[in-house]
Amino acid sequence: METNLHINRDRLLQRLQVLAQIGSIEGGGVCRLALTDEDRLARDLVRGWMTELGLDVTVDRIGNLVGVRAGMEAGDPVMTGSHIDTVATGGRYDGNLGVLAGLEVIETLNEADLVTRRPLAVGIFTNEEGARFAPDMMGSAVHQGLFEVEDMLAVVGVDGKLLGEELQHIGYAGSAATGNNRAACFIELHIEQGPVLENEGFDIAAVEGVQGISWTEYRLEGSSNHAGTTPMHLRQDAGLVAAAIAVEARRIALDMGGAQVATVGVNELNPGLINVIAKQALVSVDLRNTDEALLCRAEQSMAEFVKTICAAEGVTCASRTLARFKPVEFDADMVSLIAETATSLGYSVRRMPSGAGHDAQMFAPNCPTTMIFIPSRHGISHNVAEYSSAEQIHKGAEVLLQALLAKAS
Amino acid sequence: METNLHINRDRLLQRLQVLAQIGSIEGGGVCRLALTDEDRLARDLVRGWMTELGLDVTVDRIGNLVGVRAGMEAGDPVMTGSHIDTVATGGRYDGNLGVLAGLEVIETLNEADLVTRRPLAVGIFTNEEGARFAPDMMGSAVHQGLFEVEDMLAVVGVDGKLLGEELQHIGYAGSAATGNNRAACFIELHIEQGPVLENEGFDIAAVEGVQGISWTEYRLEGSSNHAGTTPMHLRQDAGLVAAAIAVEARRIALDMGGAQVATVGVNELNPGLINVIAKQALVSVDLRNTDEALLCRAEQSMAEFVKTICAAEGVTCASRTLARFKPVEFDADMVSLIAETATSLGYSVRRMPSGAGHDAQMFAPNCPTTMIFIPSRHGISHNVAEYSSAEQIHKGAEVLLQALLAKAS
Repeated sequence: METNLHINRDRLLQRLQVLAQIGSIEGGGVCRLALTDEDRLARDLVRGWMTELGLDVTVDRIGNLVGVRAGMEAGDPVMTGSHIDTVATGGRYDGNLGVLAGLEVIETLNEADLVTRRPLAVGIFTNEEGARFAPDMMGSAVHQGLFEVEDMLAVVGVDGKLLGEELQHIGYAGSAATGNNRAACFIELHIEQGPVLENEGFDIAAVEGVQGISWTEYRLEGSSNHAGTTPMHLRQDAGLVAAAIAVEARRIALDMGGAQVATVGVNELNPGLINVIAKQALVSVDLRNTDEALLCRAEQSMAEFVKTICAAEGVTCASRTLARFKPVEFDADMVSLIAETATSLGYSVRRMPSGAGHDAQMFAPNCPTTMIFIPSRHGISHNVAEYSSAEQIHKGAEVLLQALLAKAS
Repeated sequence: METNLHINRDRLLQRLQVLAQIGSIEGGGVCRLALTDEDRLARDLVRGWMTELGLDVTVDRIGNLVGVRAGMEAGDPVMTGSHIDTVATGGRYDGNLGVLAGLEVIETLNEADLVTRRPLAVGIFTNEEGARFAPDMMGSAVHQGLFEVEDMLAVVGVDGKLLGEELQHIGYAGSAATGNNRAACFIELHIEQGPVLENEGFDIAAVEGVQGISWTEYRLEGSSNHAGTTPMHLRQDAGLVAAAIAVEARRIALDMGGAQVATVGVNELNPGLINVIAKQALVSVDLRNTDEALLCRAEQSMAEFVKTICAAEGVTCASRTLARFKPVEFDADMVSLIAETATSLGYSVRRMPSGAGHDAQMFAPNCPTTMIFIPSRHGISHNVAEYSSAEQIHKGAEVLLQALLAKAS
């Protein structure tokens, strides 16, 4: 460890504060949807900082910005970065912290006149949130060759706009190649976006991987009837089946334990009247696990339950997979590096998976990758109330600095 | 029984057919909301028929139309009747059948030159459905002194219109007194609006009473969080509690058995997103039983469950009673009269409670009362697909004729 080297907390907070002004919304939040004018202004601002810091900045065909600081040797850079797009009711830390902490590491090295052996790079990846254009984590996936750039340029947003045109419109349709960008390794600093670190009193998480995600939508069709005149045994109640699915989702998660989580966030009844048995219900099931085999088991349990309950109630069901990502496992040595670095700095550290998707997971198939989490107050994110303290941010950036140095030396 | 006396099935069907033209909607249904122009046209039509049949027609202050056929003796009339208002997507039988079968009984007696000992009366009661102005069963309740007429005239409809003014507007703000209209007894013919008779193959039901109704609304407040990053034990999932309430409602009904039914027709989640734990849920519970003590037990079971699950999940709950009617028990001798009359006519008969509210229940506290049900195809009502066959209607009207004669002789 370069124990005499420390990031400048206030400078980092100041950049976070300035960036948060672009697309700022009431309550201290940010609305900066990908490839909007706000995104352009934010990109202009951060690209300016990159240039000031002496980075060699390129823009690729999907709009990713990568700033490289040369090392003593040539070769693949040790890389960090994240995103600066937000959801419509976003906070100021999600993504932005990872980018600006990367710049803070660069500035710290610049001030110390320290040239690493390997090059260092900071990336700003296009459209991580997927709030305007699906899928999410688009820029990093294209950067690492997991999605085809042509396919993504043809994506139509929720507002009917074509991604490629919007990218042109904001001036970030670059020329750098995508798909075979090699990195020596990748480390992303991010807020946890969940309550675990705060609840358990840890400063830092060494992120072991990203949960696999399975989203299924069930359209249930029963029979609409009078709540008073229809005997229980003659009902085909789509609402009852929907409710049973939600209760079963909870049961599956509790029974399986470990990293398994299950959520039913959508449950729409039709006609939705107090005295009418629901004819139709639309239910979503969100299952996540860090272990693919366990995730498959959870999916299977749910599918069997739905089949059984539908048959018992005389309700028909059309199911549809809305999303399916396999779990991502980060490199064990990289995870240990984060854990050991945090411990050496005197911070308490916990290993944990990420429940949300992040740009880092797109690097994981191609190079040793991990992430650093810092606590999110009350676990709140994608919300104007998103918050991590100055001290928490400081600790996260310190770990990032030392971990990048360890890999780049 | 006057075994040589029979109603004229085709004449009754013809009147049903003609009345169904007023406010007719696609699919063979009717939209004839109370105190609209359609209601006025229908009232004008049926009042004309009443007058043609020689009935002495009065209109009371809430717009109820009562046509009386004199008996050999004066005194309280033996009464039948129902309503001719419908819900917005109503059928042509609900209510209308009871009124027109009453007129068919009158015409049958007229043709036979048969004068009963007691007077006979046919009532058309204002706003039974409550679809435009709450509460429902309004006219019969005012007629029998259960609601104050002044209160009802001041009711504002879903369209913002004042009931009293709308009654004036359609020309049915009569002068006859309300509140102490005595009847010797009351018998209402109605479609079942449920599937029991059809399912079990009965022609007729002798209705033993009307289920008590308990409507409760629960507003649940949990905490909105990320579906991926929030461990199961840290969730305050309003949607899970809502689902558990719906499943518990079903359990209570099945455990209690007998006449207990339970329905959760409303279950609205907020924000209602696939990957967000629901912060809020709005759930309704509709509990019905023919026995007040059992209904109270069901309510208590549900209240205890809600308390327990909310505490376990860390969700707060505000509950509100939206409706509460005690069960109505019809007169045992009247019920037996219907059962015996049907049997004598060679029809299969079942005793059962009504799951829906009807005008008859407003007479029950004041005079011997019962109802006659005929089957509803697939149990469907409040729907353009509402249907009872010519034969089923015929049988119901025959029972009504003989039962009224038995009471009036």
